[in-house]
Amino acid sequence: MKIRFLVTGGTFDKEYNELTGALFFKDTHVREMLRLGRCNLGLEIRTLMMIDSTEMSDLDREMILKSCTETSPERIVISHGTDTMSETARYLGERVKDRTIVLTGAMVPYTFGSSDGLFNLGSALAFVQTLPHGVYVVMNGRCFDWHDVKKNRSTGHFEKTKDK
Amino acid sequence: MKIRFLVTGGTFDKEYNELTGALFFKDTHVREMLRLGRCNLGLEIRTLMMIDSTEMSDLDREMILKSCTETSPERIVISHGTDTMSETARYLGERVKDRTIVLTGAMVPYTFGSSDGLFNLGSALAFVQTLPHGVYVVMNGRCFDWHDVKKNRSTGHFEKTKDK
Amino acid sequence: MKIRFLVTGGTFDKEYNELTGALFFKDTHVREMLRLGRCNLGLEIRTLMMIDSTEMSDLDREMILKSCTETSPERIVISHGTDTMSETARYLGERVKDRTIVLTGAMVPYTFGSSDGLFNLGSALAFVQTLPHGVYVVMNGRCFDWHDVKKNRSTGHFEKTKDK
Amino acid sequence: MKIRFLVTGGTFDKEYNELTGALFFKDTHVREMLRLGRCNLGLEIRTLMMIDSTEMSDLDREMILKSCTETSPERIVISHGTDTMSETARYLGERVKDRTIVLTGAMVPYTFGSSDGLFNLGSALAFVQTLPHGVYVVMNGRCFDWHDVKKNRSTGHFEKTKDK
Repeated sequence: MKIRFLVTGGTFDKEYNELTGALFFKDTHVREMLRLGRCNLGLEIRTLMMIDSTEMSDLDREMILKSCTETSPERIVISHGTDTMSETARYLGERVKDRTIVLTGAMVPYTFGSSDGLFNLGSALAFVQTLPHGVYVVMNGRCFDWHDVKKNRSTGHFEKTKDK
Repeated sequence: MKIRFLVTGGTFDKEYNELTGALFFKDTHVREMLRLGRCNLGLEIRTLMMIDSTEMSDLDREMILKSCTETSPERIVISHGTDTMSETARYLGERVKDRTIVLTGAMVPYTFGSSDGLFNLGSALAFVQTLPHGVYVVMNGRCFDWHDVKKNRSTGHFEKTKDK
Repeated sequence: MKIRFLVTGGTFDKEYNELTGALFFKDTHVREMLRLGRCNLGLEIRTLMMIDSTEMSDLDREMILKSCTETSPERIVISHGTDTMSETARYLGERVKDRTIVLTGAMVPYTFGSSDGLFNLGSALAFVQTLPHGVYVVMNGRCFDWHDVKKNRSTGHFEKTKDK
Repeated sequence: MKIRFLVTGGTFDKEYNELTGALFFKDTHVREMLRLGRCNLGLEIRTLMMIDSTEMSDLDREMILKSCTETSPERIVISHGTDTMSETARYLGERVKDRTIVLTGAMVPYTFGSSDGLFNLGSALAFVQTLPHGVYVVMNGRCFDWHDVKKNRSTGHFEKTKDK
């Protein structure tokens, strides 16, 4: 089963700059995380961009869309910042019908030790192998349809739009 | 969706005894790992035993079987040592028909930092939510049917019985 | 040998706020770090403030000075942000003559895994036990006199004022 | 100030073999630990052996002795297993008079995350820079003379021979 992994940045891949105290992007940690997980799915990894999802424009989303549809395998995981993950999921969900696309991310950078990234990566890769065509957000061990998901900004958890 | 989590021990939950240099079991780390993964599936966790899977007897497997069938929800994850994970999967696979059961574990103890445990836990919880009734082994990001899986002892990876 | 440990904040004790992505202070990690180091020196720990050292005023320094001189044991370690560590060392060095005071800190927060904090804490506690009265900065495995130390802002390392 | 670092193995440098579950030695982690500590002392590191200190013979101790006395700088740190650290300290203490030698180690392997190794390394490097000629054991944030130190096997802490 061929799976493509598209990297777009997000907290997942942030690093700590010890000279300035700011967070920044260098390279993706996805390969290292897959090694740690002893994952042997033979993923095809491509870094599309390395940005904070609050800065993601519709031009960026168009580029993600193209990478999903042009010659891509049917199953795709996208690492993405959590702040606008639901928006990108909606953008793709309205435009892609013949792919299984899973967006995932992390609340804490992988390099900080206490990250949820490895857990979410494991979940995302599992869901993408079994779900029918559609666009999904995978966070907190759960899977949400693109048309019914939002990030609860006070808890940091994802939930259905009608929840609470 | 109700999911039961059965703890049986395995490398997953081993600790390092700094006085003797030996590995041993104390409590399960599953709750801590779920917290790290910001998982809010509301699992029902039960510790059945805390043993090395090389020491697992058919009496132990019978106890696991009972916990799977008596009043259990339909979806069950079992943490298990990797050495005899395939054997327990077979034992359950031959006896349980109306449950989705996923066995998972780790090659390195969770407490050692470089563990694959969190990744596998994420995968296992995702697969158990989507797979039809059956008994499965989830390791290395992949999912194997109980009747077609073995641990490759020279690589430490799981594979189909016919592989290589 | 009685040693007092004064906590003032600094990168050492910063945490990551997963909802906002900002760094902030909660409680000091010094006790946890001493436990990890199996340290049994019986330190007397007091949190004076929890601030970024760029925000440290002379009023704050006066408070630190008082804690060092009023009824304090002769040997004192102070955890401090690196940005103005040399300034506070100078402030204390010009005013305290009958104490051995060691300032130390970290370039990366302890909670981020890749921190130099535990190494620096080990060094600081060793130097404070053996050095004569004076005020010192301990970073990078080295010990600097208060009147001859500066942080090199392009490398993040401490050095003598005449270096380079 | 020139410092030599002699590696002899011990828990400090042990790794976990994920295929067998046993602990073993590969390479020393001292360089990586010094990098983590942003240490710029310019140490001269030599690996003499990689053994469990329960297996250290007087022939091994003779080799350590030679490395300490032949053309070595005056200040030397030795990483060593904790089980016979006091014995090696005594062996060297009775034979070397013109060096400052500090033995240190760890109760938990550096690779296991929860190690005291980085703390002890920081302490050892600080003590070796300030102590007069002699042979010392540095553990638990404390420094012991070679003729008055033993490991308490029930607590894992080092103490003076008369303690308790």
